[in-house]
Amino acid sequence: MPLPFAAATETADALVALFVVLLAAKLGDELFKRIHQPAIVGEILAGVLVGPSLLGFVEPDEALELFAELGVVFLLFWVGLETKVSDLREVGGTAIRVGVMGVIVPFAAGFGLGIAIGEDAQTSTFIGAALVATSVGITSAVLIELGVLDSRAARTILGAAIVDDILALVLLAVAVGVAEGDVDVASIGVVIGLAAGFVAFVGLGGTAIMRRRPGLLHTPRFSESPLLPAVLLCLGLAAFAAQIGLAAIIGAFFAGMIVAETRDQHPIEEEIAPLYAFFPPFFFAFIGTQVDLDALLDLETLALLAGVTIVAIATKLAGGVIGARSMGRRDALLVGTGMVPRGEVGIIVAGIGVTAGVIDEQLFAVIVGMSILTTLLVPPFLRRMTANPSG
Amino acid sequence: MPLPFAAATETADALVALFVVLLAAKLGDELFKRIHQPAIVGEILAGVLVGPSLLGFVEPDEALELFAELGVVFLLFWVGLETKVSDLREVGGTAIRVGVMGVIVPFAAGFGLGIAIGEDAQTSTFIGAALVATSVGITSAVLIELGVLDSRAARTILGAAIVDDILALVLLAVAVGVAEGDVDVASIGVVIGLAAGFVAFVGLGGTAIMRRRPGLLHTPRFSESPLLPAVLLCLGLAAFAAQIGLAAIIGAFFAGMIVAETRDQHPIEEEIAPLYAFFPPFFFAFIGTQVDLDALLDLETLALLAGVTIVAIATKLAGGVIGARSMGRRDALLVGTGMVPRGEVGIIVAGIGVTAGVIDEQLFAVIVGMSILTTLLVPPFLRRMTANPSG
Repeated sequence: MPLPFAAATETADALVALFVVLLAAKLGDELFKRIHQPAIVGEILAGVLVGPSLLGFVEPDEALELFAELGVVFLLFWVGLETKVSDLREVGGTAIRVGVMGVIVPFAAGFGLGIAIGEDAQTSTFIGAALVATSVGITSAVLIELGVLDSRAARTILGAAIVDDILALVLLAVAVGVAEGDVDVASIGVVIGLAAGFVAFVGLGGTAIMRRRPGLLHTPRFSESPLLPAVLLCLGLAAFAAQIGLAAIIGAFFAGMIVAETRDQHPIEEEIAPLYAFFPPFFFAFIGTQVDLDALLDLETLALLAGVTIVAIATKLAGGVIGARSMGRRDALLVGTGMVPRGEVGIIVAGIGVTAGVIDEQLFAVIVGMSILTTLLVPPFLRRMTANPSG
Repeated sequence: MPLPFAAATETADALVALFVVLLAAKLGDELFKRIHQPAIVGEILAGVLVGPSLLGFVEPDEALELFAELGVVFLLFWVGLETKVSDLREVGGTAIRVGVMGVIVPFAAGFGLGIAIGEDAQTSTFIGAALVATSVGITSAVLIELGVLDSRAARTILGAAIVDDILALVLLAVAVGVAEGDVDVASIGVVIGLAAGFVAFVGLGGTAIMRRRPGLLHTPRFSESPLLPAVLLCLGLAAFAAQIGLAAIIGAFFAGMIVAETRDQHPIEEEIAPLYAFFPPFFFAFIGTQVDLDALLDLETLALLAGVTIVAIATKLAGGVIGARSMGRRDALLVGTGMVPRGEVGIIVAGIGVTAGVIDEQLFAVIVGMSILTTLLVPPFLRRMTANPSG
């Protein structure tokens, strides 16, 4: 609209983008619920629709990315609120096996696939790394929607996702080192040390402190309502995790687990619920806006996309099933399926590969396409598997 | 922290900035409550502290600006939820007089001051325009804190702020036209028409529709909870208002008034409360981060700042008191005082003047300083005036 002056237009335009994305996500959500499909698939497809590929109403810019990040942060904070440390301890051994196998198998297959299609070792390392990291945000949202977040399989997936993210971080550090022709063993040691330290001190230490002093967050010395202290803990740990290279959502998840140990858990859940309703739709729609349909529209690229996606699904499923075989066939299959979505994580790895100069435009579009396909295909399967307990 | 690779660092850094700003604002808020001072003053000063002027922990960048904008949007949405159209109608005549007088007197004085200190007509027009616009966000927050939002004086301030914003918009269009040496009467006519049409159709029409169909937002056809439809109405009208050059908060305020007519008002209030707790601290702290203490640290600038601030306070107070004289001395003084804070609006006008090339660095720092001083000085006075009903 032509205006006689530019009145803070950037912010005005950002408001329009937020409105369009939230409206589209909400409509996609409602439509998919009505046709008995997973709501988040509707939200992701709404993002594809309003994004640059189709209608072009919004660009996946920095502001939208920040809202998307807060979306998955509040999503995992919510999941953490529903999770006790003892729940994770119970599934610990299995979760570690699932996480480790779910990294080794997809990485090896992705690397092999890269070599097979004629890429060099550097690019193949990145393809392997992009196939590794599970997006626990997607699976969590589906498990919440299905009401099975407190099942053994769900907890195993959450625990495995943490192991998965730490190993993926190490692999990514190695991949960047390989791309730059300089694998710095000391730096990678620091990465591993920081990540392990974060899990030990924050995840285990933080919850232990809170179990001993369950009123800590709700001290009238600091705040009338426990909401902002809880949100600050969530943002602070998310920011810290992101700064040491882990996924921000691991910090948010631990923050949720810490708050879950306080006596204020239930009032906080009620107060967090609106933030949990407001932010996550940006996460799902943002994933959709990143797809580049034009770049995928030739036979060679489509064939590559199909191949990479099949490898991505088969290897993660295999890793999960092998790692969780002690849980019985049905649960092992559920865990394996839950680890398949790559969501935003595959996209981030591919983006780092583009920056490092070893992933070209075609390969980037393929990895983004794979991330979204794995994300869209899994929810209907999870729904069917949990709806049929006799299977 | 040196990392072996750049893992989505922009978003990771944005998370840190959000955490630092929210933590600082919350600490400032709690500290000022404890010393019996207005909480928002503590939040603004916390922004000064962590901003570039002092500690330099955060920059007032685009992401923070968007959170600040959403902060004042949810603040005015909340105020709108507490306001009925009939409340505004009751004070309509007085509000218009306060709005008009509160624009004419400060503009004339600001223009005169500009000429007196040797600026040309273009720059003087901008100084006048920067003195005009009241930040209703600041006053609203104080009125909420004092629990007097439903008083006649508070409603008069809200109504006057709408009139004020429309007139300020017209003045700003004129000021930009003057700066560019081309006052486009047709464009300015469009601005006035759009603004007036928005108020008439959205403010009056929207609430009238909602009064007739109070269940409109909460139709199970669209959504299970009325929260997201209400938030979408708020964001949509805020974005629309901003696109036609009005303040986004006018759209948000009307959205709140529309929702206030539905039968879902109370559940929506409960669900909006956490968003209202989360976002507004960014608004207040952001105002603080914009102050440039270094640029103010010479005698000439300080003298200019003192002069501009005195003119800003005296003229807005005079305009308010004259416009509201029919309400009696005490309420007229309350209304006049409530119109004094310039908050973010003065800063925005000055920023547009910098872009147009007619406001230099010194003058920008002075106008920002004036905006913040008027904002910091008013809350304690409002508190004293409302605490002493016999005055």
